Amino acid sequence: MVRLRQSNNKINFALAGMICFLMFLPAMAQAKVFNSETFTLDNGLQVIVIPNHRAPVVTHMVWYKVGAADEPQGLSGMAHYFEHLMFKDSKNLQPGEFSKIVKKLGGNDNAFTGQDYTAYFESIAVSHLEKMMEMEAGRMADLDVPPDHFHSEKQVVLEERRQRTENDPRGIFNEQMKSALFVNHPYGTPVIGWMSEIKDYEWKDVKKFYDKWYAPNNAIVIISGDVTAKEVKPMAERTYGKIKPKEIPPRIRTQIPPANGQTKMTLKHEAIQQPAFQNLRIAPGYRENKKDSLALMVLEEILSGGPTTRLYKNLVVDQKKAVSVGFSYDGNALDHGTIWISGIPNQGVTLEELEALTKGEIEKVIKDGVTKQEVADAVQRMEDAAVYARDSVAGPAMTFGYSITTGSTIDDIENWPDLIKTVSVKDVQRVAETYLDENNPWLRPAITGYLLPLDADDGKKEGETK
Amino acid sequence: MVRLRQSNNKINFALAGMICFLMFLPAMAQAKVFNSETFTLDNGLQVIVIPNHRAPVVTHMVWYKVGAADEPQGLSGMAHYFEHLMFKDSKNLQPGEFSKIVKKLGGNDNAFTGQDYTAYFESIAVSHLEKMMEMEAGRMADLDVPPDHFHSEKQVVLEERRQRTENDPRGIFNEQMKSALFVNHPYGTPVIGWMSEIKDYEWKDVKKFYDKWYAPNNAIVIISGDVTAKEVKPMAERTYGKIKPKEIPPRIRTQIPPANGQTKMTLKHEAIQQPAFQNLRIAPGYRENKKDSLALMVLEEILSGGPTTRLYKNLVVDQKKAVSVGFSYDGNALDHGTIWISGIPNQGVTLEELEALTKGEIEKVIKDGVTKQEVADAVQRMEDAAVYARDSVAGPAMTFGYSITTGSTIDDIENWPDLIKTVSVKDVQRVAETYLDENNPWLRPAITGYLLPLDADDGKKEGETK
Repeated sequence: MVRLRQSNNKINFALAGMICFLMFLPAMAQAKVFNSETFTLDNGLQVIVIPNHRAPVVTHMVWYKVGAADEPQGLSGMAHYFEHLMFKDSKNLQPGEFSKIVKKLGGNDNAFTGQDYTAYFESIAVSHLEKMMEMEAGRMADLDVPPDHFHSEKQVVLEERRQRTENDPRGIFNEQMKSALFVNHPYGTPVIGWMSEIKDYEWKDVKKFYDKWYAPNNAIVIISGDVTAKEVKPMAERTYGKIKPKEIPPRIRTQIPPANGQTKMTLKHEAIQQPAFQNLRIAPGYRENKKDSLALMVLEEILSGGPTTRLYKNLVVDQKKAVSVGFSYDGNALDHGTIWISGIPNQGVTLEELEALTKGEIEKVIKDGVTKQEVADAVQRMEDAAVYARDSVAGPAMTFGYSITTGSTIDDIENWPDLIKTVSVKDVQRVAETYLDENNPWLRPAITGYLLPLDADDGKKEGETK
Repeated sequence: MVRLRQSNNKINFALAGMICFLMFLPAMAQAKVFNSETFTLDNGLQVIVIPNHRAPVVTHMVWYKVGAADEPQGLSGMAHYFEHLMFKDSKNLQPGEFSKIVKKLGGNDNAFTGQDYTAYFESIAVSHLEKMMEMEAGRMADLDVPPDHFHSEKQVVLEERRQRTENDPRGIFNEQMKSALFVNHPYGTPVIGWMSEIKDYEWKDVKKFYDKWYAPNNAIVIISGDVTAKEVKPMAERTYGKIKPKEIPPRIRTQIPPANGQTKMTLKHEAIQQPAFQNLRIAPGYRENKKDSLALMVLEEILSGGPTTRLYKNLVVDQKKAVSVGFSYDGNALDHGTIWISGIPNQGVTLEELEALTKGEIEKVIKDGVTKQEVADAVQRMEDAAVYARDSVAGPAMTFGYSITTGSTIDDIENWPDLIKTVSVKDVQRVAETYLDENNPWLRPAITGYLLPLDADDGKKEGETK
């Protein structure tokens, strides 16, 4: 049940950039790709239906427009903790019963939390769809977790944090980098929350969070699979339709102050075997600037979209300077997008050298631009990838959820192939200059991290950091 | 009126460490130094009287136990902004009238805001003391600023921020360093607030802040000068005594997560003439750990207490490696204290070299300790400095305010000479090891900043940062 929880979106930059991108892009990559339908219930709940009639199955998702970035001061991790509690006691259901029923009916369920959303889903035979809707509606309206279950779940979440972050120096290091980058912005706080704050949750705070954000008019239901909107609508009315709407408060999103100077973090640790650099930069999200966001997607594809693209071909294959090197852009965010540049040098190559070579490849784009052919190839690859997206039942539902909860429209998703084709050679060069040229005085904040193994002479003291 | 505003305490580390230290220490440096008296009114207002009968004058201060660190999310700078508004309209007073009256009576007044407190004061002939109390009580109870005055004051504060921070690359850089150091803690937010948030204040938010925190039971009145508690008490009852207490909410102070790795920020800027390094570290405040805090004060004095102490003598005078070099410790904080190590190298010496030499001096303390004579000399100098403290009328009031609002007791202040004498040679070595040894895996977070002039070949583009 908890495998997928703590969504990788904006949580683990080491993985998330690529995963999110794959989820986002392919699904958007055909003209009127999904032929989705949408309607809104009287209580404000939006329902999106993505028909796919290859097999009698559906993926049913509920996306709440609340995430870690909406948590009150001092209660970091609350959105994710709350996601756990949703599997506890609710109307007519005992703790754990929700998932047991899904399993018994041959399906599977899970949930995950990001900075901007919290999502719950079940994949199951279409004949059980209404039952799933009834159960999700039940916990949307009537969660009722007694204090002892509330407290016991803390141990589960604390253990989750220990395993994923505390016991992994890279985990702590990534948190530190993001905290330093996202100054005065909630994206600098990890989705899972700070250890000290998870420990101090009180039931009244959790209850307040639920009462404030969990409501039909703050959710989107997405159903992908062997159904039509016409079939879904009466079911939605019978289940979710019974829940009263609430007044939803505005989401407070503070602004990152301008910064100058360069920030570099270094971690030496015995658990690190290969040195690596990572450069994390703030870039526009799709909601903030669609045109630039699309151009950044194409730039990513040109630089790092496969074995024949610039970074890999030049630095790994031809010059043999790197074991791996990457450039990824994630624009799926209500507020700020990010660019993540990283590399692991080959033996005999220093981190500084590989970092300079990688930046050199980006400077080439800034100075000389890219070719028409490169843009055409990149767009083609992105469209090709999208062909596969429609094969999946769950994938398109994920894509709609990620995109809509971070500010895209259904039209953006359905018309994505037309949109991505508008990106020109000049656009690609322009966004490289705007968001990556270190001589640009208005460049957004960035941070560089160096991960280093212990030197031979550093000794091997347990838990030592230098 | 606004000269002293935006207190240097924890705002500008480049200056504040030393200033605060001087204010804090000398005043604490005699056994029963001040023979202060204290009483509390029925409404919870604490009054401290520090008699000084050399001249018929007083300094009258009101310290509110609220500061920048208590501001709500997204409303940074509110405590300081509010301090400005206190000079606007209140019961029977027009904007600016408060200061005009003080001036007409031959006195002067001002105010300042820190992370943990907001303070207002008047220095004036003792015959006008009750008038001052009446006026302060007036604005404690009945501030009433109309919307147009509220909005016009924004421009004043925005201009203050532009002058002190935006137009000074060091200002922005110091803010950045503190933001990166104080992860998940309000001390990472500048007292004056972020530009984008000052712009967006609304009158209702400001009013809420006032209603929440400005009350007699959340304030301390400190009167230093030609009075006794017996004389002050009836005046306090006639003025402040009339104000009703409020229920004061707990102050939410989040915790800094553990960090590993090293963080370094570099700023190259044309406005910087001399390269400099600064190393800012988290250390215990006096409230958190009195014993260690006292030992850190002695360590500071041994390393950097004058021309004959270690850093200056070794690096500036003997080795001629530095133009200046310093070590300062500030423990005056409800939450975290700080250590600030800094240096400007002589020509021909690199920042890296001077940083290593300075750390080398600290490592000597960790490895070899200090001498009994050094500790005795340091304590003697600290006590000598305190002799002068009693000459001042305003100084002792400041000291009491800073100390009491950050967790010291009156006994701590009055008995400070006895307390500082308890610091042993071993204590000094121990705190150096605990808070400064980079091989200590439990070392608290730290950050290093390098300020660099533009290189000859960097060009001189306007506003450029690299």
